[in-house]
Amino acid sequence: MRTIRQPDDAYVYTLSAVHPPIASVACNETVVIETIDAFEGKLRSSSDLYSQKCPGPPRANPQTGPISVEGAKPGDTLVVHIHNIEPAESFAVTALIPEFGGLTGTSLTATLDRPLPESTRILPIEDGALRFNDTTMLPLEPFLGTLGTAPDLEAISSLVPGYWGGNMDCIETCSGSSVWLPVHNEGAIFFVGDAHARQGDGELTGVAAEMSARVTISFAVLKGRTIRWPRIETADYLMAIGSARPLEDAARIAWKELITWLAEDFAFDTLEAYQLLGLAGQMRLGNMVDPNYSMVAKISKRWLPSQATDRD
Amino acid sequence: MRTIRQPDDAYVYTLSAVHPPIASVACNETVVIETIDAFEGKLRSSSDLYSQKCPGPPRANPQTGPISVEGAKPGDTLVVHIHNIEPAESFAVTALIPEFGGLTGTSLTATLDRPLPESTRILPIEDGALRFNDTTMLPLEPFLGTLGTAPDLEAISSLVPGYWGGNMDCIETCSGSSVWLPVHNEGAIFFVGDAHARQGDGELTGVAAEMSARVTISFAVLKGRTIRWPRIETADYLMAIGSARPLEDAARIAWKELITWLAEDFAFDTLEAYQLLGLAGQMRLGNMVDPNYSMVAKISKRWLPSQATDRD
Amino acid sequence: MRTIRQPDDAYVYTLSAVHPPIASVACNETVVIETIDAFEGKLRSSSDLYSQKCPGPPRANPQTGPISVEGAKPGDTLVVHIHNIEPAESFAVTALIPEFGGLTGTSLTATLDRPLPESTRILPIEDGALRFNDTTMLPLEPFLGTLGTAPDLEAISSLVPGYWGGNMDCIETCSGSSVWLPVHNEGAIFFVGDAHARQGDGELTGVAAEMSARVTISFAVLKGRTIRWPRIETADYLMAIGSARPLEDAARIAWKELITWLAEDFAFDTLEAYQLLGLAGQMRLGNMVDPNYSMVAKISKRWLPSQATDRD
Amino acid sequence: MRTIRQPDDAYVYTLSAVHPPIASVACNETVVIETIDAFEGKLRSSSDLYSQKCPGPPRANPQTGPISVEGAKPGDTLVVHIHNIEPAESFAVTALIPEFGGLTGTSLTATLDRPLPESTRILPIEDGALRFNDTTMLPLEPFLGTLGTAPDLEAISSLVPGYWGGNMDCIETCSGSSVWLPVHNEGAIFFVGDAHARQGDGELTGVAAEMSARVTISFAVLKGRTIRWPRIETADYLMAIGSARPLEDAARIAWKELITWLAEDFAFDTLEAYQLLGLAGQMRLGNMVDPNYSMVAKISKRWLPSQATDRD
Repeated sequence: MRTIRQPDDAYVYTLSAVHPPIASVACNETVVIETIDAFEGKLRSSSDLYSQKCPGPPRANPQTGPISVEGAKPGDTLVVHIHNIEPAESFAVTALIPEFGGLTGTSLTATLDRPLPESTRILPIEDGALRFNDTTMLPLEPFLGTLGTAPDLEAISSLVPGYWGGNMDCIETCSGSSVWLPVHNEGAIFFVGDAHARQGDGELTGVAAEMSARVTISFAVLKGRTIRWPRIETADYLMAIGSARPLEDAARIAWKELITWLAEDFAFDTLEAYQLLGLAGQMRLGNMVDPNYSMVAKISKRWLPSQATDRD
Repeated sequence: MRTIRQPDDAYVYTLSAVHPPIASVACNETVVIETIDAFEGKLRSSSDLYSQKCPGPPRANPQTGPISVEGAKPGDTLVVHIHNIEPAESFAVTALIPEFGGLTGTSLTATLDRPLPESTRILPIEDGALRFNDTTMLPLEPFLGTLGTAPDLEAISSLVPGYWGGNMDCIETCSGSSVWLPVHNEGAIFFVGDAHARQGDGELTGVAAEMSARVTISFAVLKGRTIRWPRIETADYLMAIGSARPLEDAARIAWKELITWLAEDFAFDTLEAYQLLGLAGQMRLGNMVDPNYSMVAKISKRWLPSQATDRD
Repeated sequence: MRTIRQPDDAYVYTLSAVHPPIASVACNETVVIETIDAFEGKLRSSSDLYSQKCPGPPRANPQTGPISVEGAKPGDTLVVHIHNIEPAESFAVTALIPEFGGLTGTSLTATLDRPLPESTRILPIEDGALRFNDTTMLPLEPFLGTLGTAPDLEAISSLVPGYWGGNMDCIETCSGSSVWLPVHNEGAIFFVGDAHARQGDGELTGVAAEMSARVTISFAVLKGRTIRWPRIETADYLMAIGSARPLEDAARIAWKELITWLAEDFAFDTLEAYQLLGLAGQMRLGNMVDPNYSMVAKISKRWLPSQATDRD
Repeated sequence: MRTIRQPDDAYVYTLSAVHPPIASVACNETVVIETIDAFEGKLRSSSDLYSQKCPGPPRANPQTGPISVEGAKPGDTLVVHIHNIEPAESFAVTALIPEFGGLTGTSLTATLDRPLPESTRILPIEDGALRFNDTTMLPLEPFLGTLGTAPDLEAISSLVPGYWGGNMDCIETCSGSSVWLPVHNEGAIFFVGDAHARQGDGELTGVAAEMSARVTISFAVLKGRTIRWPRIETADYLMAIGSARPLEDAARIAWKELITWLAEDFAFDTLEAYQLLGLAGQMRLGNMVDPNYSMVAKISKRWLPSQATDRD
């Protein structure tokens, strides 16, 4: 299996078609992609503070890529099958960063309050779990904090989630998921990074259990299929992810994209789908700390007609 | 077991200490409370439209109560143990109501767009499930849409959730849950209603599977224990519910109340609890349609120290 | 001229029809109403701290009232003509209150940050101006922070603005303004209080230049005229005030109510009014600190057809 | 006076340092810059509909630039003195665009409601005023909807306002204003476009009176002076503009940046400045329709100490 790594460790900090592809991958080729952690490997002990070791936004959240996917053209949908995510090191790291996080004043929710104290916390990986403290071990539940395609025309910081995917920080982009992303440029121009060993809903402190990783994925392209926002299919669920502020707008986007999916592929009347979600839809908080917040709308396949309209 | 029902069907539409109690219950007495559905039983077929049959807010969401709980005083916490919720009729009902719901302009998110069409949908209960349409049966998963204590000084519409509980529309207030509510008046002054046969996260259309119900509950009072926002304890989880707009403020409230709980009862340092939630907390959308939105923060008891500080 | 004052200094803290009227006023009778400051006169020097002298919400923002207006019935509109607002004492007072204000974590925008320090600041009134410090005098520009009618069915804290008026904290409710309020109860059930010697837009710190006052007003009733949200007419402007969170919903409400006014009284097509506001409407921040935020939408009468449809 | 126009009408749609400068300007050189209207001149009659004539976002809001300013380096502040803005044609144009505007569901505030009807409206310029309809003339009050410097690292759509300036749509960026912008790249990399013949607060419909224009400006550079968000100085006011969602975050940013200015240049204690703004600050709605909303915080120079600390 081919391994793709960033040449010269020259990770990129924006999702954009201006970056020259570092690799080209055929549909259905399975590759291993190496990603570095969100701190570019610079926080390795509790004495390594973010404000001292890292340049800060927007030089943050380094991505591997872009990868060009053969045959993908604007208006298509890129499907990313995630097969495996494994830690590249024996630890993950989390941190408290001033003016960042869900329960503190931030650069956007600006206050005059004094920021919370800065700290770095190493989380050793032991027997497939993270050591949180002397008594608490938390299981490894790895996922990709950031994956996306280059947006249309813009170069967006890898800290930002949006219609292109990006820094959604949703635990659903894990092994076993097929992530649908809109294609706005020739070759899709795919980026991935920011693997998390695990994370609570919302990534409340702004920082998950960050880790460098080896990610096994393959791609498919749905030709002529256009989506507006990222979708995920698993064995059991259809999902859509909306990213915006305030959080209710992220929710609205996700619900509407999911309703669109039900209408397109399962012949649902829009209002019938709306009522089904009202009775059986699920919604989890993705993140409430990034420049856009993310919400994940889901519907169990159990509640869908067995005969989907043909969609591949 | 004593059954409590609203005298003369004179249901109440506000949570307030001005209403005279309809019953007084001792701690640890188990009672059955009859509740009527959110439409006061007036929507019984698809031709019964809300705008024609019901007076509209704030004369909506009729509550059974208030019930006085013996010994409860301001500054205490009322614990409501929910033992059972069973349908009182053979159907539930849902509806689309103009200018109401998560994906339409509303009285607060005011637009000039034409409202969605009004409709009523009967959901027959068959073999413990709801018939959604010809092919889809959805399991009964009953919970209480509204329960709360009288707020301090105010009389708040039963449509509104807040620090007093109220119309939180969270699926976690179900059988097996112990719901903690702040006590602001002598006797706690408890209200309950708006049982739902089931609901998707967020109550997306603004209306769940509404049903009249028989609710079996008992009360406990935590003397001298003061909480700011509702909490829930189940066999496996500690939870807190925040209700506000925008949705991120509901989230912030819920997370902070949960951190406070961890600090009070499990000797957590505040920032340690914050980081634990960042790595292992869960958050689900309660409702995004009521005058305040609700979010539910959770932590699995698996991640907590086994020796809690004594708290009852 | 009759003077109305609160009997026994028993000010009220909720807007509600449960309170017995303290006076009944005929339409077109001009009366003087005495109001006490938002701290009930308890902060009289810089050593009087809010947390020590005042009980805190919801026992805050004491109102004079209710006053019954003869002839007002549900479905009518009450017009409050404000003729004069004069200070009752020789000083106003402002304060910093922990977890309250626009640039600090609050009970709703909950954070773990340490609150800003508490303080009280006396603002002597000298020659018609407020002494802010040794070098800065700020002109007296008095207005009523709170005025409203009892809402429908509920008893709402006088700290909260909404469709009933209430604690809007908008500088436009000043001498020379006619404030339109919806009538939901017999006699309108009018409350007023919280006079401000002056205030910046948004009442940024959460506290204006609070003062006790003598307010000269008269009432009119527009029979059979129904409005949803407060409106203001001055010599030069039509205005509407929306109160909600987030702030964009307050804005949407205010704009829509103003468009409704233009359609009702000036024969505007809705979309024509929308475009006129897009080119010539004005919007100022009312408050961003109360439980609901307020925005004021305005249109200059210069841009309206001279022949209004008859509306009084 | 030198005139700068976009070569080959190849306007740009992102603010980014990747675009090669079209001109280099010395500090204190006064230049005329030609800008094209937000629809690239394609809507010239009421039968020209946006959806038919224009490609849509992000290929919208064409900018002239970038212009390199000699001597500007990262960490400096660029001051843009606006001397004059005059219409280049005899009309302006406004429009209603589906899923765009303040009182309709949008791509972010996603609803299932049917969009408002599309239309284009020509606004002839007659005797220095805009003809709105047969009876209403609105005075020309031209300003620049969009001006900004390239952001750090990113290429952001010219539709978006942010810390770099951009599509703030604030009427204060008019003749007589000095707009301060942060410099994040060598030469500042300045863009300007989207002149408006006039606009209501909030740009409520999403579209102002759009016009092509000739803009007379000159630049200054404050060496070593770093700001976080745009500021404006006029003869009478200091202002700061915050851009974010929800609107209260835009407000918080603007207030905090203005407080920072008062502390830096007028020796204000932070909390003293906070209280002064609470009593005498002003805030107007900039826009509530762009991907970020904008609020403008202001303080009259009358309330500031006469001896400012030296700041140029």
